[in-house]
Amino acid sequence: MTTYKLLVLPGDGIGPEVMAEVEKIAAFLTYEGFVKFEVEKGLVGGSAYDVHRCAISEDDMERAQAADAVLLAAVGGPKWDNVPYELRPEAGLLRLRKDMQLFANLRPAICYPALADASSLKREVVDGLDLMIVRELTGGVYFGEPKQIIDLGNGQKRAIDTQVYDTYEIERIGRIAFELARKRRNKVTSSEKRNVMKSGVLWHEVISALHVREFPDVQLEHQLADALGMQLVRRPKQFDVIVTDNLFGDMLSDVASMLTGSLGMLPSASLGERNATTGARKALYEPVHGSAPDIAGKGIANPIAMISSLGMALRYSFNMDDLADRLDRSIARVLEKGLRTADIAGGATKTISTSEMGDAILEEL
Amino acid sequence: MTTYKLLVLPGDGIGPEVMAEVEKIAAFLTYEGFVKFEVEKGLVGGSAYDVHRCAISEDDMERAQAADAVLLAAVGGPKWDNVPYELRPEAGLLRLRKDMQLFANLRPAICYPALADASSLKREVVDGLDLMIVRELTGGVYFGEPKQIIDLGNGQKRAIDTQVYDTYEIERIGRIAFELARKRRNKVTSSEKRNVMKSGVLWHEVISALHVREFPDVQLEHQLADALGMQLVRRPKQFDVIVTDNLFGDMLSDVASMLTGSLGMLPSASLGERNATTGARKALYEPVHGSAPDIAGKGIANPIAMISSLGMALRYSFNMDDLADRLDRSIARVLEKGLRTADIAGGATKTISTSEMGDAILEEL
Ligand SMILES: CC(C)[C@H](C(=O)O)[C@@H](O)C(=O)O
Ligand SMILES: CC(C)[C@H](C(=O)O)[C@@H](O)C(=O)O
Repeated sequence: MTTYKLLVLPGDGIGPEVMAEVEKIAAFLTYEGFVKFEVEKGLVGGSAYDVHRCAISEDDMERAQAADAVLLAAVGGPKWDNVPYELRPEAGLLRLRKDMQLFANLRPAICYPALADASSLKREVVDGLDLMIVRELTGGVYFGEPKQIIDLGNGQKRAIDTQVYDTYEIERIGRIAFELARKRRNKVTSSEKRNVMKSGVLWHEVISALHVREFPDVQLEHQLADALGMQLVRRPKQFDVIVTDNLFGDMLSDVASMLTGSLGMLPSASLGERNATTGARKALYEPVHGSAPDIAGKGIANPIAMISSLGMALRYSFNMDDLADRLDRSIARVLEKGLRTADIAGGATKTISTSEMGDAILEEL
Repeated sequence: MTTYKLLVLPGDGIGPEVMAEVEKIAAFLTYEGFVKFEVEKGLVGGSAYDVHRCAISEDDMERAQAADAVLLAAVGGPKWDNVPYELRPEAGLLRLRKDMQLFANLRPAICYPALADASSLKREVVDGLDLMIVRELTGGVYFGEPKQIIDLGNGQKRAIDTQVYDTYEIERIGRIAFELARKRRNKVTSSEKRNVMKSGVLWHEVISALHVREFPDVQLEHQLADALGMQLVRRPKQFDVIVTDNLFGDMLSDVASMLTGSLGMLPSASLGERNATTGARKALYEPVHGSAPDIAGKGIANPIAMISSLGMALRYSFNMDDLADRLDRSIARVLEKGLRTADIAGGATKTISTSEMGDAILEEL
């Protein structure tokens, strides 16, 4: 049996708490012989800054590059609000994405039937929701240059950010979206603001051409990003796969995540290109939620998004769909039993702690 | 009594239909002696392109600059999908905003109690919602240069958009937000992505300094734009005034509009700087909704957003708060009576046409 190297980066805030539950589950899967994980641990974000005075050390970057998969919990918090811009916690996450060339960010938004009532939306609007946002992750305004603040004198400054997209960047993320759609409900919605942005014009053009050339069997529609934000709130079940740029993907996936009742439920995968010979790809898995500094250290955070991110690793890095399905079913069953962390309790049920939730899922497994 | 010059730009799609109802109401108000309007008409968007081969003629631009207020319905539609980028319908709207220097876009999201059930959100989440998005409208990625597509050869192109903000631009939009908050519930939420964008860093810095210097009595909080999108869906009633940049404002106001049950209900005002001596300001009023080409010409569009935009003109251009209140109350009463256009019918009630809705509001007045 192949040994897989996992690099575990708990990060800040509730990160270490939710990651502890994943470590339990990874150890169990190894112990039971389902898979063989070799787990290393590193620092990222504020916790790396506190030790190394940078958002991720060169050492940990090397280990991330060498790992079969990286699991990251969350970074950031008010403690580091005043560290220099280049050293802020988010810089560690952005460097991982950029240097590992993880251009494809997959963000499923699934509404567990047991949780449909926890949503602020009406049950019938979100019940059974299952969409996938495919977000471009290494380009756009996140990394384009110039990105600077210039002092103009007279107390005036000028801030500049640059959105840049090349044809090949749009093509490769489009390909991921179309391929995913083929395994799902065969529909892709591509989103930009071509009525205002030149990158939107190019995005629309490249996705349309790719569709005709390589994926004519998949249904393609285009929606402007503002209209898509609206439709996500109005009638989210119309969507299957949504493909969009880095910044729109950031916004839209957060809106989509809220439809499901709890951000604490949602995993994500960030993938690089496949190695042409080995078929392996660099990958990082992280929950969609943040570091939630307000509840850190209390043992009440929901570990499901983090555990579910391990599930995505099984699926997208290790080709173990069966085991991933089994993990997902265990989560669903725990929820059906009425077990809830505080964030998804909806006032009603008795709540359980982070580690009790981890244990309950382990037991189902 | 002062005569006010209104320039009316019906635009495309359902534009002419909903504008006709506003013209009825403007004529009635003049006839009854509430106010004296002199109404001129112009072309914008696709309808201007069809006649003048441009998205707005120089003539109409001059009339817009000379008007006391401009009313615009909506622009765009598939008919003009293939006109050159610089002549597309949206270019007319963007030129009006830019050349008239309408930097402040006010987008209220109000949930009429009679319509709370039309929302995809639970009644208790949106009932009584009353928030105001203040969107910067003449800067950011909409107008920053370079904005271009470069041919790199080898079938590769590169698209570039540039987000630019200067201190003074952030200060003046911030001032509008704080002043509005003082007349409302005294709270401002400022939103950007300072963890990723330099313009977000400057935005945060300028708004914070302005707060300390000129508005220490107003409560200020900051939320990252992605988190704000989430909170709008989760707990929208926590907000009073939200201030944000051009692109985030575009996205977030569309999401906010969906909370209220119908986009067909929501007006907006785009305002310029006040003239220091006369106190007058340039202004354009338009619904948040688009040109809805799919239902154009059928007489079923909801004219309330457009009529309500006239209400905002009474309030923000002509200082006639009483008359504006009266118009708003008439709209509310018509809704309480159960009269509905198709978009807000929710399946249940018998629906009425665009002009029947206009007449019903006129009758209440
Ligand atoms: C933490 C932040 C830099 C990050 C982003 O903006 O991409 C986060 O919001 C996300 O969506 O993963
Ligand atoms: C039509 C389009 C250019 C416009 C915008 O993006 O500003 C619209 O979406 C709006 O919000 O007024």
